[in-house]
Amino acid sequence: MTAPYLTPLHAADLRAAGIPEPWSFGMADKVRFGEIDALQHVNNAVYLKWFENLRILYFADRDIWSVDGKRPKVVLRSIGLDYIREIRLTDTYILTGRTTKLGNTSFTMEYAVWVDGRMTTSSYAVIVMLNDDNTKRAIPDHIRQMFIDRDGASQS
Amino acid sequence: MTAPYLTPLHAADLRAAGIPEPWSFGMADKVRFGEIDALQHVNNAVYLKWFENLRILYFADRDIWSVDGKRPKVVLRSIGLDYIREIRLTDTYILTGRTTKLGNTSFTMEYAVWVDGRMTTSSYAVIVMLNDDNTKRAIPDHIRQMFIDRDGASQS
Amino acid sequence: MTAPYLTPLHAADLRAAGIPEPWSFGMADKVRFGEIDALQHVNNAVYLKWFENLRILYFADRDIWSVDGKRPKVVLRSIGLDYIREIRLTDTYILTGRTTKLGNTSFTMEYAVWVDGRMTTSSYAVIVMLNDDNTKRAIPDHIRQMFIDRDGASQS
Amino acid sequence: MTAPYLTPLHAADLRAAGIPEPWSFGMADKVRFGEIDALQHVNNAVYLKWFENLRILYFADRDIWSVDGKRPKVVLRSIGLDYIREIRLTDTYILTGRTTKLGNTSFTMEYAVWVDGRMTTSSYAVIVMLNDDNTKRAIPDHIRQMFIDRDGASQS
Repeated sequence: MTAPYLTPLHAADLRAAGIPEPWSFGMADKVRFGEIDALQHVNNAVYLKWFENLRILYFADRDIWSVDGKRPKVVLRSIGLDYIREIRLTDTYILTGRTTKLGNTSFTMEYAVWVDGRMTTSSYAVIVMLNDDNTKRAIPDHIRQMFIDRDGASQS
Repeated sequence: MTAPYLTPLHAADLRAAGIPEPWSFGMADKVRFGEIDALQHVNNAVYLKWFENLRILYFADRDIWSVDGKRPKVVLRSIGLDYIREIRLTDTYILTGRTTKLGNTSFTMEYAVWVDGRMTTSSYAVIVMLNDDNTKRAIPDHIRQMFIDRDGASQS
Repeated sequence: MTAPYLTPLHAADLRAAGIPEPWSFGMADKVRFGEIDALQHVNNAVYLKWFENLRILYFADRDIWSVDGKRPKVVLRSIGLDYIREIRLTDTYILTGRTTKLGNTSFTMEYAVWVDGRMTTSSYAVIVMLNDDNTKRAIPDHIRQMFIDRDGASQS
Repeated sequence: MTAPYLTPLHAADLRAAGIPEPWSFGMADKVRFGEIDALQHVNNAVYLKWFENLRILYFADRDIWSVDGKRPKVVLRSIGLDYIREIRLTDTYILTGRTTKLGNTSFTMEYAVWVDGRMTTSSYAVIVMLNDDNTKRAIPDHIRQMFIDRDGASQS
C-alpha cells in the first residue's frame, strides 16, 4: 500500500488501494505492538479505538466542530461490529467511514477496516449530538446537507 | 455496594445488589483512572475490555476450558453495545453475563453493566468455538446442557 | 492471598500477605487479559497504570486532595522501574507505595509489586504539586508532617 | 513537520525537523484520542508504548531479529523517564532512539520525544537478550559492532 499514514484519504486514494465505492473517506495506519493481545491478533476492543481516531479525522475534515460558534458534544449511543478476519502485528490497514442515515438529533456512521484490499471488519455507530447540558441538539441543516451530498446519507 | 471485587457473584449476590433475574453471574469492579478519556467518562472501547474480563471469569466458573483435554479457541464473531448512561471515575460497577442462544458452533452471550442497581450499558457477543487450525468446532453436549440448565439458553 | 481486592491494605494486611516493613499501604488486584501482551506477560507500560491506580487510592486515603479547599494538581516529573520478574495472566498481585523524600514542591514515592510475597517490580516517581496555572505549589505543612509520621519520609 | 508518519526517519530527516545530533533514527506519529487521559494530556504510561513501537521499528531497521537463524528474546530490565513538557491531543511528535552502552548480555537505549523541535520527554531502557529458556544470551559481535558504528555506543 502506498497511501500515506494518518492523513485523510479521499475517493481516489481509496480506489487506488482497492477499496470500492461508495467509501470516500479513510485513513491508513499500522498495527502497534500494544494492540496485539495474548491470542496474537488485534484485540477486539482496539477496533473501537481505531474508529474513534477515524471519526476525529472525519469530523475535522467535514468541519462539524464549529456549529454556530459552539462545539457540539458528539456521543455514541450504540455500536456494532462484525469481526470477519483477524489482523496481525505486521499488518498495515485502511479505515473507512461514511454517514449513512440521518435522524433529527442522531446519525449513523458505517465503518470498515481493509487489509490488502479485503474487508476484515465492519462496524456501525449511532451518534448523538448534545448540548453542554446533555440535552439533545438538532443536527444543523448545513451538516445534514453535507452528509447527504458527500456520503449519500438517507433521511429517516 | 458490599459485593467483593473481582470474584464471581452468583444469583443471591446479584439480587442483594439490586440486579434482577434472570442474571445469575457477575463480577464487581471499580473504574480505573486510565479508563476515563478526555470527555471525563469511561471510554467506549473500555466496555469491551470489561466484558472480556467477565467472560474469562465466567468460562472458568462454568469449566468450559477443559473439553476432551483440549482447550477450545473461543473467538468473537460479532458484538453490539448500547450506551445508556455514562460512567465516571469514582463509580463502582457490577458486570453481568449470561448465555442466551445456542447454535451448532456458536453461542450468544448477553452482558450488562450496573451502577447502583441501574443498568448503564447492555451488550451482546456472538462467540465461536474453533479448533487450533481455526476450523469450527461443535459445542460439546455437556456444555450446551450447562448453558441451558444454568442460563436458560435457547437452541436455534 | 486472602486480602480483599481494590481496597486500601494497611500494615497488618501487608504483613499477613508476607510483605515486609516499612511498607504500610497497598492494594490487591488481578492481572486482566488486556494487560498481557504478545509475549504472554504483563506489558511494561501496564505497571505505570497500576501505580497510577495505587496513587489515587493512596492520595484519597491520606486526604491530600482537599488542601485549603483547592484541589492541587499532582503531576509526574520523572519515574523509574526495575522489572525483576515477569507477571502472567493468572496472577494476583499486591501493589505497595510510600512517600520517602520531601522537597519544597515535590516528593518522591516508592512502589513495588508483589506476587506470592516476592517483589516482582520496584519503581519510584518524583511528583510535583502545581497550582491551576501550572506554577509550583509548596507542599502544605500538614501534608509534609503526615508523610513523615506515617511513611517515614525524609526531608532534603 | 513534513516527515512522513510511521516510517523510519534517518539523520537527514531528523535534522530537517530540527532534531540535533547525535540522534540518527526516529519515527513521526500523531497523538491519538485514547492516549489523552482525564487531565487532558498524554498519559504517563503511553510514552512506554510509544518507545516500544519505536524499538520494534529500530530493531527491524537494524536487522537484529535474525541472529544465527534464531530470533532472540529482547526484554526490558529497567527504564527511566523524565516528563519535561506535557503533550496534547492535536500534537504531532517525533520519537528518537539510539543505543548508547553495551554490556555482555544487555545494552542501554536512550529515547526522546520531540514536538516542534523541542524535547518534551527523555527516557532510557536497559534491555537484555535472552534465549528461549530465559537464560542470558551474549549480544553477537556483528550487532555490537553495528551499535558502535551507527549509534556511537560505548562498551562498558
